[in-house]
Amino acid sequence: MGPEIKKIGVLTSGGDSPGMNAAIRSVVRTCAYMKVDCVGIYRGYQGMIEGDFKPMDARSVNNIINKGGTILKSARCDEFRTPEGRKMAYEQLRAEGIDAFVVIGGDGSFHGAMTFNEEYHFPIIGIPGTIDNDIFGTSNTVGFDTAMNTVVDVIDKIRDTASSHNRLFFVEVMGRDVGHIALNAGVGAGAEEILIPEENRGLERLLESLKRSKKSGKSSSIVVVAEGDKIGKSVFELKEYVEEHLPIYDVRVSVLGHMQRGGAPSCYDRVLASRMGVKAVESLLEGMTNFMVGVQNNKIILTPISKAIKGHTKIDKELIRVSEIMTT
Amino acid sequence: MGPEIKKIGVLTSGGDSPGMNAAIRSVVRTCAYMKVDCVGIYRGYQGMIEGDFKPMDARSVNNIINKGGTILKSARCDEFRTPEGRKMAYEQLRAEGIDAFVVIGGDGSFHGAMTFNEEYHFPIIGIPGTIDNDIFGTSNTVGFDTAMNTVVDVIDKIRDTASSHNRLFFVEVMGRDVGHIALNAGVGAGAEEILIPEENRGLERLLESLKRSKKSGKSSSIVVVAEGDKIGKSVFELKEYVEEHLPIYDVRVSVLGHMQRGGAPSCYDRVLASRMGVKAVESLLEGMTNFMVGVQNNKIILTPISKAIKGHTKIDKELIRVSEIMTT
Amino acid sequence: MGPEIKKIGVLTSGGDSPGMNAAIRSVVRTCAYMKVDCVGIYRGYQGMIEGDFKPMDARSVNNIINKGGTILKSARCDEFRTPEGRKMAYEQLRAEGIDAFVVIGGDGSFHGAMTFNEEYHFPIIGIPGTIDNDIFGTSNTVGFDTAMNTVVDVIDKIRDTASSHNRLFFVEVMGRDVGHIALNAGVGAGAEEILIPEENRGLERLLESLKRSKKSGKSSSIVVVAEGDKIGKSVFELKEYVEEHLPIYDVRVSVLGHMQRGGAPSCYDRVLASRMGVKAVESLLEGMTNFMVGVQNNKIILTPISKAIKGHTKIDKELIRVSEIMTT
Amino acid sequence: MGPEIKKIGVLTSGGDSPGMNAAIRSVVRTCAYMKVDCVGIYRGYQGMIEGDFKPMDARSVNNIINKGGTILKSARCDEFRTPEGRKMAYEQLRAEGIDAFVVIGGDGSFHGAMTFNEEYHFPIIGIPGTIDNDIFGTSNTVGFDTAMNTVVDVIDKIRDTASSHNRLFFVEVMGRDVGHIALNAGVGAGAEEILIPEENRGLERLLESLKRSKKSGKSSSIVVVAEGDKIGKSVFELKEYVEEHLPIYDVRVSVLGHMQRGGAPSCYDRVLASRMGVKAVESLLEGMTNFMVGVQNNKIILTPISKAIKGHTKIDKELIRVSEIMTT
Repeated sequence: MGPEIKKIGVLTSGGDSPGMNAAIRSVVRTCAYMKVDCVGIYRGYQGMIEGDFKPMDARSVNNIINKGGTILKSARCDEFRTPEGRKMAYEQLRAEGIDAFVVIGGDGSFHGAMTFNEEYHFPIIGIPGTIDNDIFGTSNTVGFDTAMNTVVDVIDKIRDTASSHNRLFFVEVMGRDVGHIALNAGVGAGAEEILIPEENRGLERLLESLKRSKKSGKSSSIVVVAEGDKIGKSVFELKEYVEEHLPIYDVRVSVLGHMQRGGAPSCYDRVLASRMGVKAVESLLEGMTNFMVGVQNNKIILTPISKAIKGHTKIDKELIRVSEIMTT
Repeated sequence: MGPEIKKIGVLTSGGDSPGMNAAIRSVVRTCAYMKVDCVGIYRGYQGMIEGDFKPMDARSVNNIINKGGTILKSARCDEFRTPEGRKMAYEQLRAEGIDAFVVIGGDGSFHGAMTFNEEYHFPIIGIPGTIDNDIFGTSNTVGFDTAMNTVVDVIDKIRDTASSHNRLFFVEVMGRDVGHIALNAGVGAGAEEILIPEENRGLERLLESLKRSKKSGKSSSIVVVAEGDKIGKSVFELKEYVEEHLPIYDVRVSVLGHMQRGGAPSCYDRVLASRMGVKAVESLLEGMTNFMVGVQNNKIILTPISKAIKGHTKIDKELIRVSEIMTT
Repeated sequence: MGPEIKKIGVLTSGGDSPGMNAAIRSVVRTCAYMKVDCVGIYRGYQGMIEGDFKPMDARSVNNIINKGGTILKSARCDEFRTPEGRKMAYEQLRAEGIDAFVVIGGDGSFHGAMTFNEEYHFPIIGIPGTIDNDIFGTSNTVGFDTAMNTVVDVIDKIRDTASSHNRLFFVEVMGRDVGHIALNAGVGAGAEEILIPEENRGLERLLESLKRSKKSGKSSSIVVVAEGDKIGKSVFELKEYVEEHLPIYDVRVSVLGHMQRGGAPSCYDRVLASRMGVKAVESLLEGMTNFMVGVQNNKIILTPISKAIKGHTKIDKELIRVSEIMTT
Repeated sequence: MGPEIKKIGVLTSGGDSPGMNAAIRSVVRTCAYMKVDCVGIYRGYQGMIEGDFKPMDARSVNNIINKGGTILKSARCDEFRTPEGRKMAYEQLRAEGIDAFVVIGGDGSFHGAMTFNEEYHFPIIGIPGTIDNDIFGTSNTVGFDTAMNTVVDVIDKIRDTASSHNRLFFVEVMGRDVGHIALNAGVGAGAEEILIPEENRGLERLLESLKRSKKSGKSSSIVVVAEGDKIGKSVFELKEYVEEHLPIYDVRVSVLGHMQRGGAPSCYDRVLASRMGVKAVESLLEGMTNFMVGVQNNKIILTPISKAIKGHTKIDKELIRVSEIMTT
């Protein structure tokens, strides 16, 4: 076990997600409870390099558990990918007396943390904060549950107008490499079709499905498309393709975009973030390092951060089947 | 006064808006209260031409006051613009024994109703149902209040992520010819700039404003743009223009689209629709025709439908000034 | 006209309402725009007496337009009702160099301000902030629109379970002397009966109405009751009374309580508060005093604060009639 | 394996929960997909006894996935607890040609189904639908996730006004025997104390905690209390007790009540219900009976219904600890 840890830094990094503030609050309050100092590191690794630090006590995080975004701000930081950048970061941390840090973010953020740990043997723990749920070693990332709710709320609204006009809507949701949001929110919103990066079932199948849907007497259709869908057509090209081949449809497009990252976190995400923050601080104090906190089977667990980065989450085949049955 | 009215038809026409169901419910229940028959006309004028009718009693409209969309469906109908189409509509109405109708919709729907009235002396009353609030003779159209709330809710979410990343967002909202949604929701969402069709203050001014905003220490900026903004650039072109001239900004775009038409109506829109439905039926029974029901100074009033169509709503200059002061 | 005004105080007083923060933001930013100093007075008149002041600039009010509650806190203050208390308040204001203040609150808060003005000729302007909409001289108080939406959202949820079980619910909403929330939210939520302080139509009528409702085939019933309803029975006594006389009903009670004061303000309330804040500061700078800012027919106007206090808002008879027709 | 199943009944029973409609939709559509007939049984076991049946096809369940309540209605039914009642139910089912049924409900509903199965060897499968999450054999019941979100949304609103006035609120949430909602929503809402049926830590501890909270500089406090809390005082008695012993606090009470059962289901509950419905029908067709569908570690599994009834869910000790750390 390394030297005693007396001061812990906390930062958010990469794309923000709802519940990051709840995770920050948990890290800060657990430090206070454990009588360890806590320092907020602003703007992710960029702020680490620049020494943009602020001490935080239990009251610094009042009234943030229900707020979207991150009070510590976030940023992507190319400099931290260079040895020079990481050296500056290390020097800033030492100057501030920070002995370890908790990084809340996604894949890229964990990669940076791991490299930093290798070079400087600096204790780090990761908390998975991203709406995409694409991190191995945890069944849920902080923000995923909220994003699903945001998407179904919006599609519920779109369906109101779709079914009033007998229209077909293509709705693009986030998920560059993974279709978790698309698949879950698609099933939750009662979508007729769901196009995800993990499966390319071709345009023919889409046309067939839409024809069947029309024949079955449905008055409107929603097709949910993940950004990174492998058919390789943008949602606007899909619209044109369908209008050409199925002129019976009046097709519209909606790209949900960044609203999916914001909003008050769901209860689940707040509780998950709170649990993970406790575990992160406790693990550092117990001498653990280079782990990511995750949840499996509703238990909080640790996964080596190297495995979290290299592993791949898999799309749930059973859920794909459920989605097909539901569009009967 | 014309012959006694014993059966009233009700239809929704044009783009749908939240609260249309509340208006339908009100027309149907007022008919029941007044002991007059009521018939639902499906899919707007198209259904009128095709005789797509269904008798409605007080129980037909249970549990719809809080639903978005329209249970009667809506459609645009080119055929009703032809004398032949209107003749068929008239014959269908007579065959069903319908003596008068209430049309819930916007400008185009009222125009059709007026022409129909001129040709067949058929009693009609209009209820303004559109999210754009672009109808003369009423301070509020049914759906406008809800759409404003939908837009600020979404921008609140976008701001979470915008301020976490120090970003600039262009958010496009509905309003092809009028900036009511953009101006009100822009002020309500605390937007830094609001671009509306009624005022072209140029790109220079936008750049100046954004520079000033940055200098004043704001961490993020939201620019709300009405679809029909007169600068004449799409929201994507605006993004490119700003990125070129103010490279300090990381600019993103969000097009809100059709979600603005859906969702559970606000209390205000439900109450307004309920009041307007009562007035519409009562007016027909009192022998009035060719009027639109409106609200002014919180009183329900009638405006000749010809004036409602020709008049223009004006953007509130005071509110533009308020928006400028608020971005200090 | 009095001496030049260089520093304006702003406070919130009495029960809080959604949109108070938007009003504070507007007062602060208008001061900044007009190049006048602005000082936040914490905890209402109590903080004024204690000199609990903090200078505020345009950035002090970032990101509060969408937050419920009041960042300046509020309190009821008996001490300000005494000459001694007001003397201390005056001395604190002079010591701080405050030349005028804007008070955001209700009836009681305005009364205190008026007395203070009479004694010390101190310039004051009021902004009506209360969910009850019980202030004369304005068609809407800041917070009323949001509270109506909160109530219909909750009743929509209650109706889900009520209609699944064929139940009757009594829902108590705020409004000790006035039934504006009950009447509007009752109509908006499709309530079968609405009991308000302004009308005592007796228990007999309620029973008759419930019997009729049952006979008409309705599967569930919601009765909205204002706190101060004149039948003089608590909502729990009403439950017992109905269960005794109409044993066919399975009756439940829900008291909505303080949640009605909170939550993100609606777009309307945010815009209204923004407009009122501008007018309040401008009026003080133009030498006006002892006025309340109000809105009438969508124009921002001033009413002598003495009239605002003494006048009475009236319940809308037309809306009572609409509510009766809607329960057909 | 028993005789071939050609017609499946579906009913909802006991207290309703959000997501029941999504479960009904899933059962109906899976039957359609599997080319098996499906019959809706109205008003739970009461409707079964009375033969209140309606055939359902895939289109019967359009647009209900996002609706709270249950389109099949629910009821508690004493008659089904008698052999005579169950005999009548059996005869009705045979007369309709129903070969098996899926019951969506809680503990009591499962008990009735199991007894019925023992007596008539009638194939049954249960889907756990209740907001309380008190069913053994599944980590989540349909409706629990939504209820948690409803509770934190309301407490977020209450906190707005609580912190504007430095108040203490006791908020009573559902959970007669189990504290799952209270504990999770309490942590999610940032409650200062959480009182649950599973732990009686006494009134002394509550007072100590509130004193500490005040000293630590918190401006407001929320105490979440499960209905069945073992301290044995009602939430109103708690208020009086605290006001007597800690007069510094201005205490208010809010009883959330039935709104917790309603509202649009969360995405999670919609997906869970969809998955469970598929599994329920498939299991019946595979000849399984007397099982409850559950979810464990994100996999859909079966548990003998006898174990589901007898087992007890346990409160998460780790989460209690998290809640204590969070109130630092």
